Amino acid sequence: MGNLTDQNQYIGAIEAGGTKFVCAIAASSNPSEILKQASFPTRDPSSTLNDVIGFFQQNVSQNGSLSALGIGSFGPLGVSSSLPNYGNILATPKKGWQGTDLISWFTKAFPGLKIAIDTDVNAAALAEGMHGAAKDLHSYVYITIGTGIGGGVVINNQIIKGHLHPEMGHLSIHQEKSDSFTGVCPFHKNCIEGLASGEAIHQRWGARAETLPPAHPAWDLQATYIASLCQTLTAVLSPQRIILGGGVMQQSHLLPMIQQKFLMKAGGYWQLPTDYIVTPALGNQAGIIGAIQLATNTL
Amino acid sequence: MGNLTDQNQYIGAIEAGGTKFVCAIAASSNPSEILKQASFPTRDPSSTLNDVIGFFQQNVSQNGSLSALGIGSFGPLGVSSSLPNYGNILATPKKGWQGTDLISWFTKAFPGLKIAIDTDVNAAALAEGMHGAAKDLHSYVYITIGTGIGGGVVINNQIIKGHLHPEMGHLSIHQEKSDSFTGVCPFHKNCIEGLASGEAIHQRWGARAETLPPAHPAWDLQATYIASLCQTLTAVLSPQRIILGGGVMQQSHLLPMIQQKFLMKAGGYWQLPTDYIVTPALGNQAGIIGAIQLATNTL
Repeated sequence: MGNLTDQNQYIGAIEAGGTKFVCAIAASSNPSEILKQASFPTRDPSSTLNDVIGFFQQNVSQNGSLSALGIGSFGPLGVSSSLPNYGNILATPKKGWQGTDLISWFTKAFPGLKIAIDTDVNAAALAEGMHGAAKDLHSYVYITIGTGIGGGVVINNQIIKGHLHPEMGHLSIHQEKSDSFTGVCPFHKNCIEGLASGEAIHQRWGARAETLPPAHPAWDLQATYIASLCQTLTAVLSPQRIILGGGVMQQSHLLPMIQQKFLMKAGGYWQLPTDYIVTPALGNQAGIIGAIQLATNTL
Repeated sequence: MGNLTDQNQYIGAIEAGGTKFVCAIAASSNPSEILKQASFPTRDPSSTLNDVIGFFQQNVSQNGSLSALGIGSFGPLGVSSSLPNYGNILATPKKGWQGTDLISWFTKAFPGLKIAIDTDVNAAALAEGMHGAAKDLHSYVYITIGTGIGGGVVINNQIIKGHLHPEMGHLSIHQEKSDSFTGVCPFHKNCIEGLASGEAIHQRWGARAETLPPAHPAWDLQATYIASLCQTLTAVLSPQRIILGGGVMQQSHLLPMIQQKFLMKAGGYWQLPTDYIVTPALGNQAGIIGAIQLATNTL
């Protein structure tokens, strides 16, 4: 990492996750110019946000100031700057966080600071387009398959939003007849997050995904469900590429299984390039790099 | 309709369908300024396209010229102007039409004419946003449920494209356990077009949709499948509105059934406005009005 005294104006970024908050100070949106990075466990909003604010105050104030702050946060989240719930965490099951107005916290700590906020997965999607697996593409989808499942759509460098933001985890999919698992989603039981998230794997098989060997039947079922998701995304959006990230995708035997199932399901209908379904290029740095990009876009 | 001698420059538009080609000459993109409209049965490409070209030659050449031509066509269709298959009809089951280069036909007949082309459903989607049920919205989906099923997505007045264009008919959905119908899609059997298109209704029940009374079990099943489609669109795109058009939706008892099923399926998760799922405002004029808009956008 570089030297924080290189300049007087820095870009601040936060990847606000359910487990930890990653914070970074950068000289530019170039991923090689992240000058300082730290993470703090996610506790209650007040403790966590004071940790984060302290990080920026200690590291920036002596050497300069922040020109902008980008936040990629867990959701659901108010993402329309024209609505009163902008920057608020909405109906999250994460205890204590519903209704937290993230923007207000940072506006109070850093008056006048330009702040941009979006979901963590939208931030990661943006980063993969700027610097990663979707560079030079005008239409792609980024999916994270971890404890939960989420997705972001980027068209012409713009993150897609509408009434709210996509919540792909709650996509309804066809449950295999051989699969009698109830599903872990409290809202829909057997949506894709309910059937194919890391938490679903854990509860269905009684073991965490990373402990299951490649020949375990969990992976065939997992590949079937994720291939269904890819088929749905193809029919609805016809993207140029689908990027599958998140902890569950770190099992390297999974991607080729998904690619093969997708081709079978597609029934020869779609003529797609061989690198249509890929894993991310930025790994677990995508979220924070995306948050830096959100900040940079305000300047 | 107005008078073709009102001016010297006209906008030409074609809605190229599998059953008929609708042609229009307009003074502007305002739907009230369509000056002349005619339709021709879809036969082989050469006969049909010569009918269409003849219509424009006869009606325009004496009084002025075309400033632009917009085409909304059945697909699949090459829609990226940067690709060599732009304006070509791709792998259609419509006999004789695969590989037809629509743009070349009109460029030869009208040298130098500005031509814009997109799918018929994308054209209709655009029209509903400019003049119909999605006026002033920045994110919506238009679905047609007729002989087949198709859909278009519009974000910030732009039709979404990627590798190709959305082909929502080929969306895989959960088939009800009580439904043993094989499905009519030659590629995927039980995708949504295979299970819930007008053709699927016809083959499943042995009668055309418009002859089935509101209490017929066909409608409950139909509402279930279309509500699933709406749930999928909501999870993937979070649009501000979903517009359901096409011949099957002309049965007025169907929309409230879909709205109710959607609310049940959503499990209280999404907080959406009461006018979230609606029928089109432009009826069967949406396609041709959209084609006029495509042409206008080139000027």
